Amino acid sequence: MTNFTIRNEDYAERVRRSFARQGFMGFLGANLTDVAPGRVEITVPFDAQLAQQHGYFHGGVVGTIADNAGGYSSFTLMAPSDSVLTVEYKLNLMAPSNGEILIARGTVIRPGRRLTVSRADVFVVRNGVENLCGTMLGTFMTLENTSDDPARRNPSIRG
Amino acid sequence: MTNFTIRNEDYAERVRRSFARQGFMGFLGANLTDVAPGRVEITVPFDAQLAQQHGYFHGGVVGTIADNAGGYSSFTLMAPSDSVLTVEYKLNLMAPSNGEILIARGTVIRPGRRLTVSRADVFVVRNGVENLCGTMLGTFMTLENTSDDPARRNPSIRG
Amino acid sequence: MTNFTIRNEDYAERVRRSFARQGFMGFLGANLTDVAPGRVEITVPFDAQLAQQHGYFHGGVVGTIADNAGGYSSFTLMAPSDSVLTVEYKLNLMAPSNGEILIARGTVIRPGRRLTVSRADVFVVRNGVENLCGTMLGTFMTLENTSDDPARRNPSIRG
Amino acid sequence: MTNFTIRNEDYAERVRRSFARQGFMGFLGANLTDVAPGRVEITVPFDAQLAQQHGYFHGGVVGTIADNAGGYSSFTLMAPSDSVLTVEYKLNLMAPSNGEILIARGTVIRPGRRLTVSRADVFVVRNGVENLCGTMLGTFMTLENTSDDPARRNPSIRG
Repeated sequence: MTNFTIRNEDYAERVRRSFARQGFMGFLGANLTDVAPGRVEITVPFDAQLAQQHGYFHGGVVGTIADNAGGYSSFTLMAPSDSVLTVEYKLNLMAPSNGEILIARGTVIRPGRRLTVSRADVFVVRNGVENLCGTMLGTFMTLENTSDDPARRNPSIRG
Repeated sequence: MTNFTIRNEDYAERVRRSFARQGFMGFLGANLTDVAPGRVEITVPFDAQLAQQHGYFHGGVVGTIADNAGGYSSFTLMAPSDSVLTVEYKLNLMAPSNGEILIARGTVIRPGRRLTVSRADVFVVRNGVENLCGTMLGTFMTLENTSDDPARRNPSIRG
Repeated sequence: MTNFTIRNEDYAERVRRSFARQGFMGFLGANLTDVAPGRVEITVPFDAQLAQQHGYFHGGVVGTIADNAGGYSSFTLMAPSDSVLTVEYKLNLMAPSNGEILIARGTVIRPGRRLTVSRADVFVVRNGVENLCGTMLGTFMTLENTSDDPARRNPSIRG
Repeated sequence: MTNFTIRNEDYAERVRRSFARQGFMGFLGANLTDVAPGRVEITVPFDAQLAQQHGYFHGGVVGTIADNAGGYSSFTLMAPSDSVLTVEYKLNLMAPSNGEILIARGTVIRPGRRLTVSRADVFVVRNGVENLCGTMLGTFMTLENTSDDPARRNPSIRG
């Protein structure tokens, strides 16, 4: 709907590389299923190890991929020399996350030089039907002149 | 500081049983290190599988144990026939979660018949020094006449 | 986009009566400019008495009409015997509220028996151009068997 | 409890001058009743013009002084050349704001170079007894080299 300005032609590859470096994404079995300017989709198949006490996806998994979908959506619009940081987010859990797969779709609401506001909706798929189970609204910070890659990163910055 | 009314003498055991049923807590290597009326502490030792792209604890782990510490704090004050549900939470990440262990300390701010408001502070321990890296403010719902144990649970309720 | 179930044919009049009873809306010079199922619009013309230190609309005015737009959106879908209460909301301020008029557009994201999740976007109009200056995500509670009208209200309820 | 570093000896006077420039504070009848490093208190006496439909303080008034108490708490720790901006806040309303006076007490949780995280508790006083009716957690931004006084302000900055 909104047209965003791309400041880094390599945005999709950069998101993929950063995602691949997050040990926690591999541990959860999460996949980066779509990357577009200002938009990212992340999915996680169900596993009993990701469950809360009733056997559904734990809210922590919902929050994790919502935060990541919002953060990487913001990252797609940043300059080559920028890195991204989650400042804060709010998550509403609206229905039990009971299903085979969890899908988080992040979208930038307003990009800014220092701060970007993004949201993500999280759906649980059960018997092929998507049901909205969570929604996130968050604030993400641009860290200028810092690499997202720890091998090249200036360790002195802070959030 | 505040004196809370206990409506279930078995509160600590009930929290421990619920925590033990959450597959995700075992998967993360999380421990329930303290349970008191209106207060719960959860810790997670560092592992590379819990990291984000810079090698620190992933914000999703911070959010997960903050949510759980707030939710279980609320649960300690509920009646034997009640179950607990996260309605929503907001998490601020204030410093890199760079350290050996993560500690979430949840506290009830205001218990209510239907809704309880709780907060949690999350600290990262590095070389034995605790540093506040996150803070959570959330709303938790009392589900009356529902068991926290899925074996005995009424499946018709919704969040 | 979404089709909502209306449980009270009188929904629009009920929102108008409740709005008219809020002394604070009159004090701010706020107008209820649209009411539809799951959707409400509120506007406030600029006045120096509504300003912060730089002469723009105060964030408190943005928050007030965002909260009200979200709450009344939720109220349009409630039953005749229900009243509405704000549980919590989060507001992001994304641009200076510099302009002649402020417009809050609320929409229900997910209605529930006890809790409804709604959002509101707030725009400031300057020289006829709308600019998104705030966005709100909130949780609203249904109070069953309570009148919204204080003359008929049971004073013992609490949030 | 925490010791904060003061970067501006004139911090209290600066907060008072900024507060006095906010037309909305005068309009609400709000008073700045305490200013200390990292801490600010704001009070508002009840008036029917500040009420919601049940005759209590409107949640918008609670949110406004909570935001201001958190923002000015943050401002007390900033440098002479800095200005403050609300990035976002979340407010929980926990009890009806039924009483003669509303008191917001803001405290800095973590000051940062660019972002400061603060909270505020809001109490309503009824028959001399304080009751916690709201709690706020927010993020506030430091705007370097901008004056808080519009007469001297660089208009090109954005939130």
